[in-house]
Amino acid sequence: MTNKPTPRPGGRSARIQAAVHQAVQELQKEQGRAGLTVPAIAARAEVTPSTIYRRWGDLAQLLADVAVEQLQPEQPPADTGSLRSDLLAWLVEYFEEMSSAPGRAMLRDVLGTEGHACAGKCDGFLRQQIEVINERALARGEQPIETGLVIRIVVAPLMYRILFANETPTAQAIEALFEQLVSSADA
Amino acid sequence: MTNKPTPRPGGRSARIQAAVHQAVQELQKEQGRAGLTVPAIAARAEVTPSTIYRRWGDLAQLLADVAVEQLQPEQPPADTGSLRSDLLAWLVEYFEEMSSAPGRAMLRDVLGTEGHACAGKCDGFLRQQIEVINERALARGEQPIETGLVIRIVVAPLMYRILFANETPTAQAIEALFEQLVSSADA
Repeated sequence: MTNKPTPRPGGRSARIQAAVHQAVQELQKEQGRAGLTVPAIAARAEVTPSTIYRRWGDLAQLLADVAVEQLQPEQPPADTGSLRSDLLAWLVEYFEEMSSAPGRAMLRDVLGTEGHACAGKCDGFLRQQIEVINERALARGEQPIETGLVIRIVVAPLMYRILFANETPTAQAIEALFEQLVSSADA
Repeated sequence: MTNKPTPRPGGRSARIQAAVHQAVQELQKEQGRAGLTVPAIAARAEVTPSTIYRRWGDLAQLLADVAVEQLQPEQPPADTGSLRSDLLAWLVEYFEEMSSAPGRAMLRDVLGTEGHACAGKCDGFLRQQIEVINERALARGEQPIETGLVIRIVVAPLMYRILFANETPTAQAIEALFEQLVSSADA
């Protein structure tokens, strides 16, 4: 993905980004990955191919940029009344999404690209969501669970299974790791 | 990577595979990733591009296949006299390799490709090495540590940091997780 600053909303650069991202998503839906070439994306977005190369470098970087945008959470995790139920519900939903076909395609685009800006954003979104849950817990007078611990005990093993073992984590598997997390956090 | 059966050593198919793999490695060393095109690889390996497309499908699958071959361990983990020292030494070495520039490039090739055959092989190699350490421990009369536990407590969190947080795990970080593993295994 590009390391350039996020374009000012409504500016020319932001309009180009939005048009190109939309073109990628439309072509992917209509023709699958095979239809995604820089000339085809440029034609659909009504920009020149050189605009795409200048801004994103190459097709892989553009696809990673689009994937990261799709990974950005649209809303805060649901408030279900307690830290434990908020966190467990959010984890189940997150891993359901990540192990779906579109989730795996996003991970492939993000992890298959040189540079870590996109993967770092993915980690950042995940941390933000856990922190929202923790802040809500604090406001309720509950003891938060350190974000790094959630990642180490629950997120990392599930991500490993998705990426390296082609598994779709079951709710039971997520709950088992969640119990490990809760007992580590209590220790 | 290809799902075709492993070619019979010394057969025509094995010779083609060896020539193409060698061409990829030579071109990558001489010209970097930019020099890796199917026509250039075919010319260097003295095969036709269609041989490559027929066998590997596309460039990404070929690169993933080469990356997995490089991930294949060349020798069993060193015998340092005890399960704990064997396992810790092997983990430190493994993550030193995986977080190096060539290690990260291999992970990118393996994880950026559709299908899980290559990522699954990578997981398989890692499990094999841990099992060699465990078998040696059993032969010494030591209590082995379940491979799945090593992956969940040590490997997965370090892999997450390499992939998503662009970190290079320090020996201290590996030792800290290793202590977690040992106390979980003892529990």
